[in-house]
Amino acid sequence: MLHAQTEPDQQTVIQISDNVKIGGKDLVIIGGPCTVESMSQMEQVASHLSIAPVQALRGGVYKPRTSPYAFQGLGVEGLEILAKVSQRHNLPVVTEVMAISQIETIAAYADMLQVGSRNMQNFDLLKALGQAGKPILLKRGLAATIEEFLMAAEYILSHGNPDVVLCERGIRSFDNYTRNVLDLGAVAALKQLTHLPVIVDPSHAVGKRELVAPLAKAAIACGADGLIIECHPEPEKSVSDARQALSLEDMVQLVHNLRPVAEAVGRRIPSLKNQPQLIAA
Amino acid sequence: MLHAQTEPDQQTVIQISDNVKIGGKDLVIIGGPCTVESMSQMEQVASHLSIAPVQALRGGVYKPRTSPYAFQGLGVEGLEILAKVSQRHNLPVVTEVMAISQIETIAAYADMLQVGSRNMQNFDLLKALGQAGKPILLKRGLAATIEEFLMAAEYILSHGNPDVVLCERGIRSFDNYTRNVLDLGAVAALKQLTHLPVIVDPSHAVGKRELVAPLAKAAIACGADGLIIECHPEPEKSVSDARQALSLEDMVQLVHNLRPVAEAVGRRIPSLKNQPQLIAA
Amino acid sequence: MLHAQTEPDQQTVIQISDNVKIGGKDLVIIGGPCTVESMSQMEQVASHLSIAPVQALRGGVYKPRTSPYAFQGLGVEGLEILAKVSQRHNLPVVTEVMAISQIETIAAYADMLQVGSRNMQNFDLLKALGQAGKPILLKRGLAATIEEFLMAAEYILSHGNPDVVLCERGIRSFDNYTRNVLDLGAVAALKQLTHLPVIVDPSHAVGKRELVAPLAKAAIACGADGLIIECHPEPEKSVSDARQALSLEDMVQLVHNLRPVAEAVGRRIPSLKNQPQLIAA
Amino acid sequence: MLHAQTEPDQQTVIQISDNVKIGGKDLVIIGGPCTVESMSQMEQVASHLSIAPVQALRGGVYKPRTSPYAFQGLGVEGLEILAKVSQRHNLPVVTEVMAISQIETIAAYADMLQVGSRNMQNFDLLKALGQAGKPILLKRGLAATIEEFLMAAEYILSHGNPDVVLCERGIRSFDNYTRNVLDLGAVAALKQLTHLPVIVDPSHAVGKRELVAPLAKAAIACGADGLIIECHPEPEKSVSDARQALSLEDMVQLVHNLRPVAEAVGRRIPSLKNQPQLIAA
Repeated sequence: MLHAQTEPDQQTVIQISDNVKIGGKDLVIIGGPCTVESMSQMEQVASHLSIAPVQALRGGVYKPRTSPYAFQGLGVEGLEILAKVSQRHNLPVVTEVMAISQIETIAAYADMLQVGSRNMQNFDLLKALGQAGKPILLKRGLAATIEEFLMAAEYILSHGNPDVVLCERGIRSFDNYTRNVLDLGAVAALKQLTHLPVIVDPSHAVGKRELVAPLAKAAIACGADGLIIECHPEPEKSVSDARQALSLEDMVQLVHNLRPVAEAVGRRIPSLKNQPQLIAA
Repeated sequence: MLHAQTEPDQQTVIQISDNVKIGGKDLVIIGGPCTVESMSQMEQVASHLSIAPVQALRGGVYKPRTSPYAFQGLGVEGLEILAKVSQRHNLPVVTEVMAISQIETIAAYADMLQVGSRNMQNFDLLKALGQAGKPILLKRGLAATIEEFLMAAEYILSHGNPDVVLCERGIRSFDNYTRNVLDLGAVAALKQLTHLPVIVDPSHAVGKRELVAPLAKAAIACGADGLIIECHPEPEKSVSDARQALSLEDMVQLVHNLRPVAEAVGRRIPSLKNQPQLIAA
Repeated sequence: MLHAQTEPDQQTVIQISDNVKIGGKDLVIIGGPCTVESMSQMEQVASHLSIAPVQALRGGVYKPRTSPYAFQGLGVEGLEILAKVSQRHNLPVVTEVMAISQIETIAAYADMLQVGSRNMQNFDLLKALGQAGKPILLKRGLAATIEEFLMAAEYILSHGNPDVVLCERGIRSFDNYTRNVLDLGAVAALKQLTHLPVIVDPSHAVGKRELVAPLAKAAIACGADGLIIECHPEPEKSVSDARQALSLEDMVQLVHNLRPVAEAVGRRIPSLKNQPQLIAA
Repeated sequence: MLHAQTEPDQQTVIQISDNVKIGGKDLVIIGGPCTVESMSQMEQVASHLSIAPVQALRGGVYKPRTSPYAFQGLGVEGLEILAKVSQRHNLPVVTEVMAISQIETIAAYADMLQVGSRNMQNFDLLKALGQAGKPILLKRGLAATIEEFLMAAEYILSHGNPDVVLCERGIRSFDNYTRNVLDLGAVAALKQLTHLPVIVDPSHAVGKRELVAPLAKAAIACGADGLIIECHPEPEKSVSDARQALSLEDMVQLVHNLRPVAEAVGRRIPSLKNQPQLIAA
């Protein structure tokens, strides 16, 4: 077993579907809404983002909400939507798992399981995900140190699952102009401390859509292996995190604008013409 | 059902054992080690603290540890130790629950179940604790706002368990001279925002035993309903958090010194002569 | 010269006027408005607080304001008001100095010069205050470590002025329910690290008047040598920090309520009958 | 007078020397040591960095040090070194001003005056710099909000000096793996909130030289108008901040590597062939 903190002479590349890998020269862009709301919503998202293209879809069906009275997600119905849209567009999907009892079900539908910030040190969940048989997207806790973040990954690795993607998504700080503070110093540090891929979620980090694009570029420039970005057919109508979602048009434009930044640091964002399998689909 | 944020005209008083309540005029002092290590350790703790007296014992048997390679606790063996010592000394016990799968077992042995800081927003655990049938000690997350803290309690309340004690235990900040920053402003605010009892853990807040006593006094002066304090027969040999545990002698002395502070703010820390049931035991 | 970090076997006691000292068994309570607005305002404050009694008055005449367009204080006119009220009521006054050019003037009128949080590491100001010939009230910076705080005091001490009172007034954190987070762990630590007196400003720490009293009690319980508290004849009409000022009646009541807390930790808040010099005045 | 918070339809471009401007399409890279130590040190720095090229030199001669016993800088001797090296290599210089009394002297030698983080709200210094007659490099305070940062600039603008360059340099947070947390979300926000140029100091932000390059790239990708980076002929022998200084060779390499990133976001880092005046020098 590789430890999370082995120095990254050898970069781990994680296959999340037949045609999508995280951690190699190609960056991965994951797009989609905060919450899966309906089939038509997800169909719009997928068909629109396929032209960007993005490499994977995101969408929450079990939602960690501050209040018990807030909408808690569509559950299995949402998983079915995700799976259908995923198949139709040949786009792998990632969705959040909040409890051990959900692992088996989610793993049957999704390609990658996300552990949210609030659960980064839910150690029993991490241990169970060691046996999930699917790659894990582990989000950094809101006040987790780099050491604690790596040790959370280690819980999953040491329980049998070598496929962990780390995700920086902003930490808590004193200024509420941005929702959180995106800690790209942690991304740069992680790229030197671990062989695991590291991606960035600029949407939750800043919480304002007009700041997502510059931070997405920054994340790639500093060495991130990919991005996970919230977008929605009608951002202002999103059932959650409406303030931070990009429109689908802005998302497509952003992916286009990210390409030269990726190339400037020796990476690549796949375009349609070098993704023959997507065209064929 | 009472909401957590109902204004506290009426203070909720929670009975954690035949003779111990939290939230009334009498303060509750909970003492014990970070980790249950052996029967003889816990017996020393209980017999020593009975002369303080403290009103309850603490001790971890399922331990949330940053590293998966650190000692994870004695588990059921530890619960059995806790239960025996509890019975022998007529002292209720509180211990941490980390997973839904542990609830039933722990509830069979312990008088109050603790949710640790890392699990404050483990919403599925909170929901399940709504059905635990025992009082819950909910610790504030390391970067949780007051609103999020109250909403975490609301998850438990709204799922059927009205007996939630809140515990401020320090938040993360920039100075590492103290382990965390004890946020007594939050305690004062909570006493105005909720009817639920609020206690304070100065040990985890400061992380240095020589700073525990002044903060314990401060917590009581600002209106806390009790304290949970780490102590150990041989602090420097503690398997975890050795730097912050008081010796048993210092713990007894501290309880003695807290009494006039409690009285200065119209509260009371029970002494042996007004706890006949303890003398009889 | 004593260094700030000498261990405090010997507590420094600082005389700020004929009858007021900071750092001994007697605590010092300093009250007054954020900003000196008029003679009648300060006269009301002083005559009212004399019955508490407080030991000193505060009031800003040079105001550090985030915006250059906000009211910057009455300047010399304010100093004259302070001096007259001080003399009439035999109450020493403390007011903020923001620039080297103000030191001589302020020192001619006031008994103690305050360095605000924003200037805690304005090293040239600190050096100049080494020659001010008056005691200095040094407030902790909003994100200053304990080490940096002590070293700021050291700048003043090493330039010739041994009379430095430290003041904890809240640090920046992620929750905006309270204005800042009062760090009483730092107060407890400072009492062990330095021989200099340490006082607490609960008003700026929490920023809400209804939370000032519990934190004032907590500060004293944890060992502070005094308090500096904002109060105003008509709090809601205060030109600055209106949300945190106590009414004069509440201030008098608070001093009354603090007395038993002080006694519970072996300290004393002077009352009128043991302050013959004030009665005689 | 333009206010700092005017929306940046019109970007302010600030001329800091005959051939160097900040805020236009061309980015500015400022390099040099934390502290000016000797003529030979600065000569090595300047001659080496001229081949990068950088557009300006940095070097401290009045040093804000946490301890009064630490080296406080060479003062006027350092200014003379800076001026000679500046002239010889046709490179403008920026150096820190800590006190009003230093403004006139520093302005006689340097091309741009830096206000350090600790003095961001030293309002009297800011007001005086309104009359300095030279551009100001204003560093963000360690716990300053975006609003406070802009208001600090407003102090300078409203007192007569329109030439203010903002500099993000990391904010305080809970993880000490990096010295501070570089807040590129603030940079992105500032580019939308103000017409003033915004540059980034990755060296002080992370405090570890191996993390400077990725953050420098990130800063440019997110829209910064330039960088200020610490470098030293023998980093490990630097009298201050040795851990974060790049070697001169690494600095030259970094500028080279930044060029494609700048181009990817529609900016440009001048190279020798498009800086004829430098070749001629």
